[in-house]
Amino acid sequence: MQDKIAQLKEHIARVSDLRRAAAVLNWDQEVQMPPGGVQARAAQIGTLRGLAHQLFTSDEVGALLNDLKPCLDQLDYDSDEASLIRVLAREYDKAVRVPPAWVEENARVTSLGRQAWAQAKARNDFSTFEPLLERIVALQREWADFFAPYDNPYDPLLDRCEPGLDSAQVGALFAGLRPQLAALVEQITRQGRPVDDSFLERPLPPDRQVAFGRMLAARLGYDYRRGRLDLSAHPFTTSFAPDDVRITTLVDPHNFFRCVKSSIHEAGHALHAQNLDPALYRTSLDWGAGMAIGESQSRFYENIIGRSRAFWKRLLPVMQAFFAPQLDDLELEAFYRAINKVQPSLIRVKADEVTYGLHIILRFELENDLVNGRVSVSDLPKEWNARMEAYLGVVPPTDSEGVLQDIHWSQGSIGYFPDYLLGSIFAVQLWDAMQKDLPDATAEIEAGRFEGILRWLRDKVMRHGRKFTLPELAARAVGGPLSAEPFMAYLRAKMDDIYGLG
Amino acid sequence: MQDKIAQLKEHIARVSDLRRAAAVLNWDQEVQMPPGGVQARAAQIGTLRGLAHQLFTSDEVGALLNDLKPCLDQLDYDSDEASLIRVLAREYDKAVRVPPAWVEENARVTSLGRQAWAQAKARNDFSTFEPLLERIVALQREWADFFAPYDNPYDPLLDRCEPGLDSAQVGALFAGLRPQLAALVEQITRQGRPVDDSFLERPLPPDRQVAFGRMLAARLGYDYRRGRLDLSAHPFTTSFAPDDVRITTLVDPHNFFRCVKSSIHEAGHALHAQNLDPALYRTSLDWGAGMAIGESQSRFYENIIGRSRAFWKRLLPVMQAFFAPQLDDLELEAFYRAINKVQPSLIRVKADEVTYGLHIILRFELENDLVNGRVSVSDLPKEWNARMEAYLGVVPPTDSEGVLQDIHWSQGSIGYFPDYLLGSIFAVQLWDAMQKDLPDATAEIEAGRFEGILRWLRDKVMRHGRKFTLPELAARAVGGPLSAEPFMAYLRAKMDDIYGLG
Repeated sequence: MQDKIAQLKEHIARVSDLRRAAAVLNWDQEVQMPPGGVQARAAQIGTLRGLAHQLFTSDEVGALLNDLKPCLDQLDYDSDEASLIRVLAREYDKAVRVPPAWVEENARVTSLGRQAWAQAKARNDFSTFEPLLERIVALQREWADFFAPYDNPYDPLLDRCEPGLDSAQVGALFAGLRPQLAALVEQITRQGRPVDDSFLERPLPPDRQVAFGRMLAARLGYDYRRGRLDLSAHPFTTSFAPDDVRITTLVDPHNFFRCVKSSIHEAGHALHAQNLDPALYRTSLDWGAGMAIGESQSRFYENIIGRSRAFWKRLLPVMQAFFAPQLDDLELEAFYRAINKVQPSLIRVKADEVTYGLHIILRFELENDLVNGRVSVSDLPKEWNARMEAYLGVVPPTDSEGVLQDIHWSQGSIGYFPDYLLGSIFAVQLWDAMQKDLPDATAEIEAGRFEGILRWLRDKVMRHGRKFTLPELAARAVGGPLSAEPFMAYLRAKMDDIYGLG
Repeated sequence: MQDKIAQLKEHIARVSDLRRAAAVLNWDQEVQMPPGGVQARAAQIGTLRGLAHQLFTSDEVGALLNDLKPCLDQLDYDSDEASLIRVLAREYDKAVRVPPAWVEENARVTSLGRQAWAQAKARNDFSTFEPLLERIVALQREWADFFAPYDNPYDPLLDRCEPGLDSAQVGALFAGLRPQLAALVEQITRQGRPVDDSFLERPLPPDRQVAFGRMLAARLGYDYRRGRLDLSAHPFTTSFAPDDVRITTLVDPHNFFRCVKSSIHEAGHALHAQNLDPALYRTSLDWGAGMAIGESQSRFYENIIGRSRAFWKRLLPVMQAFFAPQLDDLELEAFYRAINKVQPSLIRVKADEVTYGLHIILRFELENDLVNGRVSVSDLPKEWNARMEAYLGVVPPTDSEGVLQDIHWSQGSIGYFPDYLLGSIFAVQLWDAMQKDLPDATAEIEAGRFEGILRWLRDKVMRHGRKFTLPELAARAVGGPLSAEPFMAYLRAKMDDIYGLG
């Protein structure tokens, strides 16, 4: 058995290298590449992903997994070996259903799609993106069909992003959440004390904002000997190995908190990737997990820490010194209230913690309708605007501020959006469980010490890579299933404190 | 036949993508990567190169080439199709002799070697690099043995860098050149008018130096929509496609002309890569050629243009404006003489056009002795210093300024150095031929117009990619074989003008 596991690992190490190489090419495309490079880059990434798929779905891997599956009975479920066999067998069974030609075509189309989306967004012209999005959606439906039969073609897409989730579960969770979120928004709008966040618009030097973001990431435990932070159009984190994990962030000239929160959010992802158990390196279990698990880490850092009073009690004076004299007059309470201001608005990534969920639920519903053919790509702008009005009471004046705002669909990421909200929900469950083990967690944040928190998250979540599904991880980390109740309780308490809802 | 050529091209396109992907990972390693990434990167590049080798040496490629070789009789020798078959068949025959395990091991060792070399050079400690260099030399000798029988194990290494060259030819050319170069150096030292180049040490802002280098490259025709220029420890040019060709340059705080000439040199390489015939893209004939052909282009721009009086007549005032007021007092003649000053010195990349050849001849001889076992790796520092004294009359006070100065051996590039000098030699032959077609070439340079020169070089050299060997290209471009006579005549005339040798 050990010999077969070693052979399997050797095969997977190459697959992992090809995938990581594709990630390097993708990072380069987003951060460094001259515009002329886009066509060749699409071909190169397509070749790498196609070959990775081909090697992973080879007969040798299939035979090794077949030989190893019976050994699962003798192995501890949580061991690295059992997890390797279990997770790879699941992925192999998925991957052999997808022809290499689909993988290459999808890589090619989405690489062009990203570029077309960026141009369409810049020019507020959905029509130039539409034909590529048609093609992308068609490819995603083709993909879903590789997994027929299903109750809903959206199920395989959801399961791809976070194994073990389906549209019935997520739909039920979101259907329960929507009225509660809407009610909370209404209560805040109706009876809350007004919050002034106009000072967040003060122009601060972009270079200094990035430098401050770099400093914050380092404070939280991100290691620059094993990473770097750059600017890109859409912030993301990518890992080429636990020792080379890169962050990108953005600067919004109209809101300096965007750079702060995006740096903290991505630092959360990067801490996840840097704190993996080294034994999992090159096994393909060596980064992240389902998207919702990943988001639980970034949202934990962004929301639970990065939007807390405790964090800014220590860090606001540091920020003031960093940008002196522009922020010298800021007071903690006013700043804390401003960065938590609840207000229905157009752009998901600018949304507060409460309305954010409604942005996600809208996307979940639209994706579900798209892949089921209930909404066509050409109707998307109209549908988007109608639902924005219904759920949030605001209508995008342009598609750039509406249906074109997110990069995801241009990359073929359909079924991904729900995980942002699921991540926020799970982050609160982690926070509740953490406080039982570390009663001083808030005091630690206030003292600017983050080692204990990181150690807890590393132990419960980060080190495991992709060993466990979200339900498995939730059972181990918080002792129960995913639940929206702690999330709503957390939001209500925080908003009561800020808005005096009584 | 057309069908088989199409199949061959499809195979080769993937091989090309893998090689270009490895080049992206290498560029990233030199320009962007955090230090922690080195181990994982070595594995990734090893996997990509190993797979490229495996795909290129597949039975399908072999069968296609076997089927296509007889068609060469029906095809025009210079056609893309004939060249594709001819060059790929030659490379295939070479590549099948090299086991994939060697390719992966070599990629791994040289990736570590580069890092070890950089550290050893920084710390002036040859001993920390020595064990890796031992391994690198051993791997190169193993490689040479795949091509036994040979007259000299150095021959396959030379042929790898520039097909069609062997140690007998190169040795004879260099043996004829060495006394002539030494005599010219001696004549200059003895009877030349002294040249003051102390003003080149003036400290100029590094950012501005890079910006000036960027501007010069653009003037010469380099297209930034299809490229970028960055800083790295050792300047290089890399091509991921004709539409994504990247330059790196350096800044020497003690000599501002280093950045100028390195930017022009690399721009020459980059123009070569950007001006390829698009029909050759992804065929593996789509960048450069033998190393000496490549160097002929970079040396043409660096020496023939970049160290000419005509060029600086127009550009010196531009440079003065760029760095005002630091260079306001410079005069054309003094500047021209300074950038062409001949003086025996320690560092190859800082050497003038005359002594440069002696640096190369020393390396050629040492490499030849190394792979023949006449000199051991551990004796290298001592041998280096002894020959420096014999050929140039100077002795490096440290290994960092001696045997550790160049990156090449750390990358396994043995047999490469001679091509720098061969490139300089061929560049002068090109210049002589160009002036027959373009009698106004010097006037064009003086007027700051470089399109005609670029068009001539594109037509004669750049567009052909790797279609022709150096002898083949020389016959087509200058109507004869490689010859050192024009080179010596060019140097004597230029030095007589500067030093008044009479």
